[in-house]
Amino acid sequence: MVDFRTSPARYRHWRLAVDGPVATLTMDVDEQGGLVPGYELKLNSYDLGVDIELYDAVQRLRFEYPQVKAVVITSGKDKVFCAGANIRMLAAADHSSKVNFCKFTNETRNGIEDASQNSGQTYIAALNGTASGGGYELALACDHIMLVDDRSSAVSLPELPLLGVLPGTGGLTRITDKRRVRRDLADYFATKAEGVAGKKAVQWKLVDEAVPRAQWQEQVSERSRAAAQSSPRLAGGGAGIELTPLEKTRTDTSVTYPHVSASLDHDRAVAEITVRGPAATHPTTIDDVHQLGDKFWTLAVTRELDDLILDLRTNEPELGTWVLRTHGAAADVLACDDLLLANDATDATEATDATDWLANEIVLYLKRTLKRLDVTSRSLIALIEPGSCFAGSLLELALACDRSYMLLDPAATITVGAMNTGPLPMGNGLTRAQTRFLGDPEALEAVEKSAGKPLEAEDAERLGLITFAPDDIDWDDEVRIAVEERASFSPDALTGLEANYRFAGPETMETKIFGRLTAWQNWIFYRPNASGPDGALRAYGTGKRARFDRKRV
Amino acid sequence: MVDFRTSPARYRHWRLAVDGPVATLTMDVDEQGGLVPGYELKLNSYDLGVDIELYDAVQRLRFEYPQVKAVVITSGKDKVFCAGANIRMLAAADHSSKVNFCKFTNETRNGIEDASQNSGQTYIAALNGTASGGGYELALACDHIMLVDDRSSAVSLPELPLLGVLPGTGGLTRITDKRRVRRDLADYFATKAEGVAGKKAVQWKLVDEAVPRAQWQEQVSERSRAAAQSSPRLAGGGAGIELTPLEKTRTDTSVTYPHVSASLDHDRAVAEITVRGPAATHPTTIDDVHQLGDKFWTLAVTRELDDLILDLRTNEPELGTWVLRTHGAAADVLACDDLLLANDATDATEATDATDWLANEIVLYLKRTLKRLDVTSRSLIALIEPGSCFAGSLLELALACDRSYMLLDPAATITVGAMNTGPLPMGNGLTRAQTRFLGDPEALEAVEKSAGKPLEAEDAERLGLITFAPDDIDWDDEVRIAVEERASFSPDALTGLEANYRFAGPETMETKIFGRLTAWQNWIFYRPNASGPDGALRAYGTGKRARFDRKRV
Repeated sequence: MVDFRTSPARYRHWRLAVDGPVATLTMDVDEQGGLVPGYELKLNSYDLGVDIELYDAVQRLRFEYPQVKAVVITSGKDKVFCAGANIRMLAAADHSSKVNFCKFTNETRNGIEDASQNSGQTYIAALNGTASGGGYELALACDHIMLVDDRSSAVSLPELPLLGVLPGTGGLTRITDKRRVRRDLADYFATKAEGVAGKKAVQWKLVDEAVPRAQWQEQVSERSRAAAQSSPRLAGGGAGIELTPLEKTRTDTSVTYPHVSASLDHDRAVAEITVRGPAATHPTTIDDVHQLGDKFWTLAVTRELDDLILDLRTNEPELGTWVLRTHGAAADVLACDDLLLANDATDATEATDATDWLANEIVLYLKRTLKRLDVTSRSLIALIEPGSCFAGSLLELALACDRSYMLLDPAATITVGAMNTGPLPMGNGLTRAQTRFLGDPEALEAVEKSAGKPLEAEDAERLGLITFAPDDIDWDDEVRIAVEERASFSPDALTGLEANYRFAGPETMETKIFGRLTAWQNWIFYRPNASGPDGALRAYGTGKRARFDRKRV
Repeated sequence: MVDFRTSPARYRHWRLAVDGPVATLTMDVDEQGGLVPGYELKLNSYDLGVDIELYDAVQRLRFEYPQVKAVVITSGKDKVFCAGANIRMLAAADHSSKVNFCKFTNETRNGIEDASQNSGQTYIAALNGTASGGGYELALACDHIMLVDDRSSAVSLPELPLLGVLPGTGGLTRITDKRRVRRDLADYFATKAEGVAGKKAVQWKLVDEAVPRAQWQEQVSERSRAAAQSSPRLAGGGAGIELTPLEKTRTDTSVTYPHVSASLDHDRAVAEITVRGPAATHPTTIDDVHQLGDKFWTLAVTRELDDLILDLRTNEPELGTWVLRTHGAAADVLACDDLLLANDATDATEATDATDWLANEIVLYLKRTLKRLDVTSRSLIALIEPGSCFAGSLLELALACDRSYMLLDPAATITVGAMNTGPLPMGNGLTRAQTRFLGDPEALEAVEKSAGKPLEAEDAERLGLITFAPDDIDWDDEVRIAVEERASFSPDALTGLEANYRFAGPETMETKIFGRLTAWQNWIFYRPNASGPDGALRAYGTGKRARFDRKRV
């Protein structure tokens, strides 16, 4: 069972060093430290275990180091920055593991971009050696890419020529849409296994600068200093808070945290998830929030949800439906939401002295966690019953679901709050309500106007916020049938259906990577030309050439 | 070998009737008329052959019937509009045929939307019986959907519950992004094999109106009359022109038309395509164009290219690389372009008396044909040599390519023209030049400023219009290596690479269907849960239940 919990003291592959406003994340992969046996992590190649540590470090930098305004990612090896995902690991992994691995690594890279964009924490890729494949894709997630100019270090995407697959972590989209590399140059680049180096790499916009080794250290320091100086981070001041170990009990049939629990029913292929609202004694000032640190409800529940999503995605692929419930008082959820929103600044460039960095980070983390739910390949069904607290931040859970059922009588309620109208956009740049009411501004306005009012099922249905509102006579049957039916459908077709429906309307680089690139990659991974006995992934390193079915599809 | 050429006299599955400004396309599929043996086209289900006729009819309505302003699509069967793609055909077809079939059918539906949007030719789906799957997707491509309200006729997307695949012709995107059906209702709809009928279908926005059988004929007439009345079509007046049979010679190793030819090299897996520019005696007035009809160069060359693309895509899946050349005088190409652009109105809503419908249609057809090239899963390489005429409309061919090579010496030239700066947008809504210079407005401006000037290789390279400019010493080797290398790569990975790179920047419903939905569908089609011996596609109709691997990916 894969565990996503770790901490710097336990890292085997990364070193985190903080020097005033600049942190340095050094990748120094332990060849023998693979997550499962069967491969060696040579040349700073990585597997899921390596990336779990990176994710942990990126998270801690945001919460534990508010003073850090620039993060340098570099390598502890001599002539290589990172060789990308380990190929033997990929060749041995089953299809769902490969896809899940790529999804998680890309989410971490999205998180790096979120830090550069919204937290004033600029990431700099200091490529002190060759960055290939996933190694270069990690650099692409950074705000600024420096490549050592030494006649041997290059950047490359060798997946297509060497492995017959695509770069799996968003590289093809980031190269054109973020770095604006011209498509024909990008085409040539992705077919050239040895990559591009030096001035040409700069000219083609693959990197921002090529720096001779003699000036390397100085230039990296200079760039990180400059980035730190121009950062709006920590306008509000304050010390970091510790992300303490999550309290979690995991059995074959349940996952339990203080605020979140899941019961795992393998016969019905369902995980029943319950999220508890805050205690009535929740804090009322932002100082209290700092005092509580990671025990503050919103942060605690977000961490637990985040871990649960990753756990179930990775360890329970056969639980195809997640049923979501909440339990608690809507007013307390909304009070915590309002406390955060009174102090955050969704856009860090607008940060003022009134902005509290921690409130900001908590909202951004909640946003990222809900986005993780949006791209999760499980059917999501919300059950809204009496005693639930689908309000504000927790109402987003219901809005993220493919369907919701709300009990008509006895009455349950939901409440729209400020968290539903802006601070938690989806990957497509719209709120879940905006996406839901695409092209129907009147419906959206009616929903926004209802903010603060507890809505019973009839009103919620009229406003379009829920899918069905059975009464107590029909409730059990309707819900049972919906869940059973879901389990009877093709899991693949459900994945495709949900991935399409969840992202109506505009696309962004983020949704393009998830929806377009990932879907192609899934297909390519699955084809015999890649994964068959004579496919390129299997043939790599054996001296044999891959045998391709030449038919173009 | 599949032939895409047909004409109304040869239709087996459709009837085209024109009554003043209203045309009626009646689907009445001949059960025994399948393109290949092995299945019966029951219940107005269709295969590629049925859709080839539809494509032909839609094209002829634009060129042969300028007076037609509304097109009613309906069924000649009693209680069924259309049951969608034939399932036995799908179950028996190999993967590349299925994917290619879906691509072509969707392109025809895009063409229907293009007619409604840009030609003042509004399509009305008159569903006089149940429309399932691809049948409902055909309706979704129309501007207005009428469903008979008779307690039995419904619209449905039963692919997921019955076949374990997705609707293959854009349905999932059109339902949310075009018709703005709420995602949770859309979810329920796509899991309900029997579909939704009557008032509920209207309420959920699945159809525009549900009409009792007693008022059916009258209401259909009324709607089509109203659509015709509000159409800006034929502001310029004039009679239709006939699309005469294409002159085409097809052998195993060549395809030859008057202006376009292709030599098919199965050993090197390459099609070498040459497009010839207009004769020096091309027309100089729009009246001449009407006089020439489909012999006018731009229309003739577009029809030939269109047919060639469809032929090679379908019949030559192993020719993975298309090498494109042109031959002729740039000035003549630009003169034909300018003649059209002086008379067209890309946006029909702005049509005035100065607008010539034929000029308009020719430009729109060229646009659609270039879009077809953009989504073609073949590597596209342009070779720009002395004697070529990559100018204006033909320069778009080079800009559509994944790479271009331009001979430095002896000098070849390319010329930017008005066709490159607006009238021929890609599916993403941008011109090919805008997409190429995404986020670099200065580069784009420099290119636009060069309009009309023949550019030699050095200038073309500096402006970013070509990829490489070898001299005559390197030319043969560089080109040979590029083509050989392409043939050595995984065809699947190339398809994915190109599909991503070609659509940098924004997405539209059209690119979402191609890039997101299609990619998911490709993957799902290929998985054993659909296509394996126990998969849902094979199990359908046998009485056996499909057996699924329950792992979510």
